[in-house]
This record gives sequence, structure tokens and C-alpha cells, in this order.
Amino acid sequence: MLASLAATGLRAAPATAPDTVAAQLRDAAMAGHDIAWSWVSELSTRFGPRPAGSVNEQQAAAWAATKLKSLGFENVHIESFPITAWVRGSESAQLTAPSTQPLVIAALGESPPTPGSGLEGDVVIFPTLTDLKAAAPGSLNGKIALVTQRMVRAQDGAGYGAAVPARTDGPKEAAQRGAIAFLLRSVGTDSHRLAHTGTTRYVDGGVPVPAFALSAPDADQIERIAALGQTVRVRLFSTASYLPDAHSQNVIADVRGRERPQEVVLLGAHLDSWDQGTGAIDDGAGTAIITAAAKLIRDLPHRPRRTVRVVLFGSEEIAQPTPPGGAFGGHSYATNHQAELADHMLAGESDFGTDRVYSFALPATVTQSELAKTLLRILTPIGVLASERAPEDVGTDIGPTVEAGVPAFQLSQDGMHYFDIHHTADDTLDKVDRAALDQNVAAWAALIWLAADSDVDFRPRPSPSATGVPQSR
Amino acid sequence: MLASLAATGLRAAPATAPDTVAAQLRDAAMAGHDIAWSWVSELSTRFGPRPAGSVNEQQAAAWAATKLKSLGFENVHIESFPITAWVRGSESAQLTAPSTQPLVIAALGESPPTPGSGLEGDVVIFPTLTDLKAAAPGSLNGKIALVTQRMVRAQDGAGYGAAVPARTDGPKEAAQRGAIAFLLRSVGTDSHRLAHTGTTRYVDGGVPVPAFALSAPDADQIERIAALGQTVRVRLFSTASYLPDAHSQNVIADVRGRERPQEVVLLGAHLDSWDQGTGAIDDGAGTAIITAAAKLIRDLPHRPRRTVRVVLFGSEEIAQPTPPGGAFGGHSYATNHQAELADHMLAGESDFGTDRVYSFALPATVTQSELAKTLLRILTPIGVLASERAPEDVGTDIGPTVEAGVPAFQLSQDGMHYFDIHHTADDTLDKVDRAALDQNVAAWAALIWLAADSDVDFRPRPSPSATGVPQSR
Repeated sequence: MLASLAATGLRAAPATAPDTVAAQLRDAAMAGHDIAWSWVSELSTRFGPRPAGSVNEQQAAAWAATKLKSLGFENVHIESFPITAWVRGSESAQLTAPSTQPLVIAALGESPPTPGSGLEGDVVIFPTLTDLKAAAPGSLNGKIALVTQRMVRAQDGAGYGAAVPARTDGPKEAAQRGAIAFLLRSVGTDSHRLAHTGTTRYVDGGVPVPAFALSAPDADQIERIAALGQTVRVRLFSTASYLPDAHSQNVIADVRGRERPQEVVLLGAHLDSWDQGTGAIDDGAGTAIITAAAKLIRDLPHRPRRTVRVVLFGSEEIAQPTPPGGAFGGHSYATNHQAELADHMLAGESDFGTDRVYSFALPATVTQSELAKTLLRILTPIGVLASERAPEDVGTDIGPTVEAGVPAFQLSQDGMHYFDIHHTADDTLDKVDRAALDQNVAAWAALIWLAADSDVDFRPRPSPSATGVPQSR
Repeated sequence: MLASLAATGLRAAPATAPDTVAAQLRDAAMAGHDIAWSWVSELSTRFGPRPAGSVNEQQAAAWAATKLKSLGFENVHIESFPITAWVRGSESAQLTAPSTQPLVIAALGESPPTPGSGLEGDVVIFPTLTDLKAAAPGSLNGKIALVTQRMVRAQDGAGYGAAVPARTDGPKEAAQRGAIAFLLRSVGTDSHRLAHTGTTRYVDGGVPVPAFALSAPDADQIERIAALGQTVRVRLFSTASYLPDAHSQNVIADVRGRERPQEVVLLGAHLDSWDQGTGAIDDGAGTAIITAAAKLIRDLPHRPRRTVRVVLFGSEEIAQPTPPGGAFGGHSYATNHQAELADHMLAGESDFGTDRVYSFALPATVTQSELAKTLLRILTPIGVLASERAPEDVGTDIGPTVEAGVPAFQLSQDGMHYFDIHHTADDTLDKVDRAALDQNVAAWAALIWLAADSDVDFRPRPSPSATGVPQSR
């Protein structure tokens, strides 16, 4: 990278225009930037799964901090916070009638265990969560509820938002009607015998009944047997448990700004992962993308005016919507850094695998700005559009920071295949597309550089009648 | 089907030329023949996995016999034979050093269990079976041997033959050098967290050490950790067991020939399956293809001259090369029907999933015959070539029959994707391509009809100087 930037004459011309630097960063990343690949490879290989609160997550955080220091980042430190960890135990499931067949399941995150001898019941199938909600109280007494809603494949991931309420709210709705357990067709777009886990929601401090995802072919099988007119009976077993005195941590690293170091452009991704895969895609890739982009900027002959901050969050996957239902890294960061958030100029999160970026969205305040036009010119050659929509649903890690008023940007990645492996054992390094990883780094480096070296204020302008505060700084 | 044949005028013209009938059979199958799809759907749904000797296998055989009778087949009966069944138990594996990570494994068929507390050892990696064989006696004392040989994707499945000796012979070679267990990179072409099982070979009546397949991403992970210079330690656990007093069975059904019923054209496929998937591809599809092809012929207004016999074999998957190392359906059939084999004119087996047939091979005696030319003309429109090679490696089920002198044919299917799911939990109905299934039925029906309605003798001719036996019959 240094060699290639030097070859472009950048070192010889420190006053190079920001758009020229952005193009150089883009081209250097697209030429193949080893930092991102070696980061995700080493992280997912050395530590494998990194569930929140685990030894693996803690060791990965320590490794990341050491690595960030060796890459020349500043202010590298770890911020710990307490969590109740959830630990998958042994788990199994079988059809017991009308014939004996093994089922592929995964307990949903936060699900309580079954009794030690397991539990067994007839299955009642609901095509959607809405159908389950329409069932009468008591109608599921002693039964196992199964919601078979299918997730739709969509480039922007919209199918996930439509499907996931069945996972978050299904156990509660089933329990309220007397069910002894809850089953869900995996929220995913593949057709492999791998179940997609994911967190389900606390109700009064816990998940009310054992809850599991079935792989898509297993849900198909149960639907077909039921269509033959036969009663489907299922046996479930899980020794899942909770560790109330665990902790997780965020890893923070800065590229200190040369003019206004207190102003921060925040890059987020999460170090923790689900426990069955090795978290290469979710979210080893995101941590690699933002680290590599920031490293490219760090190695420029001149730092940007503002500080670029990398935050590798902990405990993203088991985040409950309302702390202290479950503390999580995004909440911890926004709390610890509350006093600084007024100077956080912009925040973005990379947590959608490694497929290519196809559009960017900047805060509504600047969509017609020179910065936006420059960014479009820089990113068009690598296949990125300007989104017609403002950033939305920008991510769990930076969520509390954005809710506190920090403007967000979004680099949207192609989500057509992301949910084939999301939250499954199949989330492994072989699924990472190196060329697409490089394209992500290119888009991030260009955007971050332009935002951090600018004096654009991304925050909503106060209405003209309100105050005389300058509209840019 | 009957309607569509009637529409072609076949019923009105019983003396229709054989090639015209073959074309009509082909077209009727290609138009969508529900028998094949409903067979594989019902079989894999009702009974799921059908491991040799299991209740599911026995119930599937009883169901098949009932179904074959209702379809109008004759001489439908079940022939049982004793086997020692192998039963997968609970199984698990973890990396225990340098970090704790779950591994996805599957015990190889016939593998003994581990001790009740599991076993643990350092892993020694061998890129090929040849490398393992080169290791010195005693060099693996207390270790776990891992062969990481990769299977090559090839249309004719040649990669399987090249890779599978590591599975069949690896446990023996590892044990001879002191290893306490044997691991294998799955013999497969996918990159999912699903391990490919398969039988490993008896040595002196048993498999010498516990033996497991790792999923491809798990084998990658171990190789990468080792490449970081770290010792990989693995813990293995399995409660696999044997049932010495089990039985399996073949299901037999005939379409009785109108002129020479004692002459048999044999169609084989197997009803048993591995225990993790539902045996839709291997070999529910094969049983569906041959049954549907024979049913099309059965429903013709005139039967073929010879008998068409469907045999749905049992216990194919755990067949040991030399009975009584392990009895299997193919051996049982050849033994029970020894006296009739001289009148078995031709045999073929469908056991390669549902991808399209791309070539046919007839016995070397008839490659230049009118029958071969007719068949090529009939099958060319559905994308089938004449193979330049004689039938080879025609299958486990018909193997003993062919070894006894019965000529074999082959309809070769595209194997580029077959080994992505072969012998894994992913062998489920959603993987069956209905259009390709129909094309298989079309090719089988046309070939079988032409062979069964002909008077061609497919057997090797005695040398002219030997006897005066007529060269065709």
C-alpha cells in the first residue's frame, strides 16, 4: 500500500486535493489490500466462534488491541462491561411420530434449556406470526408451536426485517397460548440442513419457553408430513445456560486528526459472533473492512483533519432492545463516551458480510453537497450508486450513538446471499470473497477520508428562527 | 401418461415400431411424469432416513411393495437377508488447543465408538493417503491422523474414486502406525459445515479405530491453525454401535415379458440411505427413476418381449467388498437368483442423484448394433451422447450380478454437483430437480423398452473356434 501510494506521487505532493487522495485510497484498496484479508483470516482462525462473554471473545479483543497498536493506531484500549452470557449446551431434536427422524435445530439465543429429560409434544403449524397471534388462549396447551414463515431474498435485506419478528416475539406469543416450546423455520434464504440462530426477546427478564430454529429442509419436511394428514410429534432437548457474571468489551483505536482531533468520525463493527460458525462473515469481515480502511488513512503522509475512530464492539449478537435487558457494546460505548458525542461528526457500521457495496447514503443534510458529489464521482467506477433514501436501520453497534444525535452514513452491501449463511455454522472463512472485501475497503476508505478531512457539519441544522449558531464548522 | 400415449395413437396401432414406441415413452416422460416425483417425495417424507437394518428401511420396503402392486407390477415380493446394522450414536468433536472450537464431524459407517469419556490427541496432518502410508510404524502413537486430501469436481465422478481410498483404507493405515483415531477431510465437493459420511473398510471383521469425516471448512480451519505453527489438539466422542441380528431386504417387481418372460432386463436402485439426510438424492431418486420408467412400459398396450424387473435393493450403503464381511442387497439378489442369471440379458443401476443423463454406454458387443443407433437417435433430442467407453463401475447393487456374467449398461448422469450433498444431512427432497428427474425417466424408459423388446443378445460371443452356440437368440 505504501509503495503504491508512493508510486502515485502522493508522498511528494502533501497538498494533494482531497478528492485525489480519495481516488488513490480507492485504487490502493482495489489493487488488493492484504490487511483486511489477513485480519479476518487470523481472527476467525485463531479464535473461531466468539460468543459474547466467552474466553474466545476476550482473547480476540486482546489480540485485536495488540494488532491495532502494531498497525500504528493511537489511543488503543479496551473498555469492558458486564453481561449475562448465554451458552448453548447440547441440543437435539427428533420427529417421534409418525416416524422417527432426526431434525436439525439450533436453540435461539437466550432460550432457556428444556427439562433434563427433554420435552415432547404435538406440533401446531402457523404459516405466519400473525396466524399464531390469532390463536385462542389455551389453544396450545401442551403443544409445540411452529411458525413456518419464509424469508424473502432481497438485495437490501428487507426480507430479514419482515421475518425476524417471528423469532423475537414468537416464544412469547406461543407461551401466552399455552405452548411448551416454540419452533421457527430458520430466518434465512438457503436450503441446507443448517439452522439459523439469533436472539429472541426477553419478556420480564427472560425467554418464556425453550425456542429453536429448524433448518429450512426440516421445516419443509414437517409441513409435508402434516399435508399427508398425519400428526407430527417432536422431541426437543437443550442444556442451554446463562452466566450472569460474565463480561464483554469494546476495543477502541484512533487515527488522531491533524486539526480538530476532538471531532470524531466513528467506524463500527463487532468482534463477537454466534457460537456455531467462526464469525468470518458476521462480523469478522466488518472488523477487517473498517480496520483496513482506517489503516490506509493512517498511512497517508497527512492525517485527515478529524479523528477517525475504529470501535470493535462486543456482545452485539445478544443485544436486547432495552438495556439492562442485556447490556451490549453499542450501549456501553454511548454511555462511556456520552460527553464526547456532541463532537462525533458521523458514524457508520459494517455488519453485512463481504458482498459488494452497491450504494451509499449520507445524512439528509448533505445529500446535495459537494462532498456527496465528489464521493459519487469517486465510487462510481467501483460500482456504487448514490442511494435515494436517507440512512436507515444503520446497525445495532452504533444504534445508541445515533439515537444520541450523531449523524449516520451507510454503505449498503448486496444482501442477496448474506442470509444464506447468516447465524449458521456455515459462517466460515471460505465464504469470504477477497475481491469484494477489497471493494468494501475501497468504499469505506474513500468515504471516511472525505468526511474526516472535510469541515462539513453533518448534523441537522437548527431551524433558522431558533438560534444564530453557524451552520457549518 | 395413459392419456398422452393414447393421444399419440399408440393404443390404436399395437404394431407400432419399437423405435416409435421408444420416442413416445421419451416424450411422455419429458412432458412431466408424476410417478417419479410423487415416489421420491413420499418415500423421503414418510420414512426420512432409511439406514440398513432400521425400522425406517423395513417400513419403506413394505410401503414400496404395496405401492408397486397398486401400480400394476407383478411378482412383487420382499426378500430378506441378515445383516449386522451399524447405528450412529451421539457424536461430537472439539478443538481443545490452541483454542476451544466446535468441529463438525460425522462418524464413518462401521466406525467403532470412542471410549465413553471420549478420546483426545494431537493431530498429525497428511495431505494424502500416500503420505500417511509413508509414515513410520509407531510414529502416530497416541495421535490422531488427519488426511486432508481434496476431492476433485468432475462430471463423471472420477474425483470420488480418487478420493475414497483415504476413507476406506485410512483407519487401517492410521491404526497400524499407532494412531488412536482417524480423521478425514470429507469426500465431497462442497464447502458447507456438513460432514460426508460413508463406509470404511473392515479389517479382520471390524474397523480398527474410531474414524470420522470433518466438514471441508473444519479441515481448512485445522490446516490454517497448523500453518500458524501451532499444535492442534482434538477431542472426539461417539457412541456408535452395532446390531448383529438385524435384517435388510430387497423389493422385487416385474413387468412380465409377452414372449420370453424368463429373459430379464434388470433395473436396480437402493431403498436404504445414510442416516443423516432423508435419502432423497441417494437413492430415493434412483428408485423413483427406475420405477417410473418401468411403470411407463407396464402401461403400454403391449408388453415388451422380455421381462423388465425392478429391484429396490437394501443395505447398499454399508456393503463391505467381500461378504460375509457385510451382507448387502446386491449379494443377496445374485445368490438368491443364481439359477436365473444365465437368462438375465442386461442390467443397469440408477444411483447418482437426479442430475441429467448425458451419455449412455451399452455392452461392447452391441455398440455398433442397430439397437445402439436407434437409441442414439431417440436420446439425442434430450441431450444424451453415446459414450466412447464401455460400461464400467456400474454400481454396488448390480455388481455381484454383473460379476456373475450379466451384461451391463450405463446411463451416466452429470456428477458436477452430486458430491456437494452426497452422504450428508443435506440429502433432502428440496435438492431434487423435477425436470432433470423427468429426463432420467425418459432415458431409462427408452433404453429399457428397446432392450426388452429386442432379441439382441448382449452377452460376449464365444470365440468362433470354441462352440457352435448361436450368436444371437
